[in-house]
Amino acid sequence: MYLTCLDLEGVLTPEMWILTAEQAGIPELRVTTREEPDYDKLMRYRIRIMKEHGLKIQDMQQAIAKADPLPGARKFLDELRTFSQVIIVSDCFEQLARPLIAKLGYPTIFCHELVADGEGTITDYRMRIRKDTKLTTVKAFQQLGFDTVASGDSYNDLDMIRASKAGFLFRTTGQIKKDNPDIPALETYDELLSAIRSAEKQ
Amino acid sequence: MYLTCLDLEGVLTPEMWILTAEQAGIPELRVTTREEPDYDKLMRYRIRIMKEHGLKIQDMQQAIAKADPLPGARKFLDELRTFSQVIIVSDCFEQLARPLIAKLGYPTIFCHELVADGEGTITDYRMRIRKDTKLTTVKAFQQLGFDTVASGDSYNDLDMIRASKAGFLFRTTGQIKKDNPDIPALETYDELLSAIRSAEKQ
Repeated sequence: MYLTCLDLEGVLTPEMWILTAEQAGIPELRVTTREEPDYDKLMRYRIRIMKEHGLKIQDMQQAIAKADPLPGARKFLDELRTFSQVIIVSDCFEQLARPLIAKLGYPTIFCHELVADGEGTITDYRMRIRKDTKLTTVKAFQQLGFDTVASGDSYNDLDMIRASKAGFLFRTTGQIKKDNPDIPALETYDELLSAIRSAEKQ
Repeated sequence: MYLTCLDLEGVLTPEMWILTAEQAGIPELRVTTREEPDYDKLMRYRIRIMKEHGLKIQDMQQAIAKADPLPGARKFLDELRTFSQVIIVSDCFEQLARPLIAKLGYPTIFCHELVADGEGTITDYRMRIRKDTKLTTVKAFQQLGFDTVASGDSYNDLDMIRASKAGFLFRTTGQIKKDNPDIPALETYDELLSAIRSAEKQ
């Protein structure tokens, strides 16, 4: 039995903090793990910037709701779901992902959660699992009797890709490709769909 | 973070072996765990009867494809998926569930698998997990950082209901209600939706 684990941002949707940064005109929110590798430090920084600009969780949701999944993502996912179980395994936040998950036809998503007060000011964030989130998640699926096939675009996807029966980088950077020459790096949804289909022999 | 775990047959769809028994006119296939509590014995019996009647996996799929989810099930599930992650945790078989899962809008399903030869004759079955399938599954979700809320109609659902933060019997038998007076027993999708919503405080 196969379960396909897909990253969300960069694979099926745009990056949500970038969307918010652009919609709200706050360039400081464009900072990602590439500039600030300490995730907790990055999140504390984002929460502070949001607060300073009086930006609330509903403002982020509205900014994100104006966006669409990446062109072709919905069609790819619809086709994938006809022959494989699929779970989105993402380091994004449930409340932010919601509008785009709706546009993707409500695939199941395992991600994290923002904590906001009554007015919607973000005060904290809650990781579903503190460390090695994606790796721990695919290992649990394997314990539950699945062979996993995984795909993602970034550093935090490498572990789940390597731990899976088959795995594919999707629209990743030149550096990640160079550092991981053993993982097939794909660029189109057709390539990804056919790679997953062939790994799952359907 | 909440994950709702739902049983499939009896909760969202009709019983699939009963559908096949009726479509194929083979009353022997109506036997369930109520008459034969030894599941392996029951499955061996079903496989033998299927073989004797020359009934193949595609015949079962066609019989099931003619059926629909229970009236109101799709609407219930669509609404549930707007505010909760949902996984169907079922003791049915993936190949048989497929046509009805499509009609339910492709919720993620964790179930078992039939083994068939090249012509479609069922030769064996493969359990995702051999023992305590539903309980093991919700416990793994809890390890992954979720609070689970569970609902089902039968004996094999009791463990996952009791292990969850909240749980509900749905359209169950008088006997199960009588034996489990501490578990709320609901009859309509509106009741179930509102019970889940209130357990997940959305």
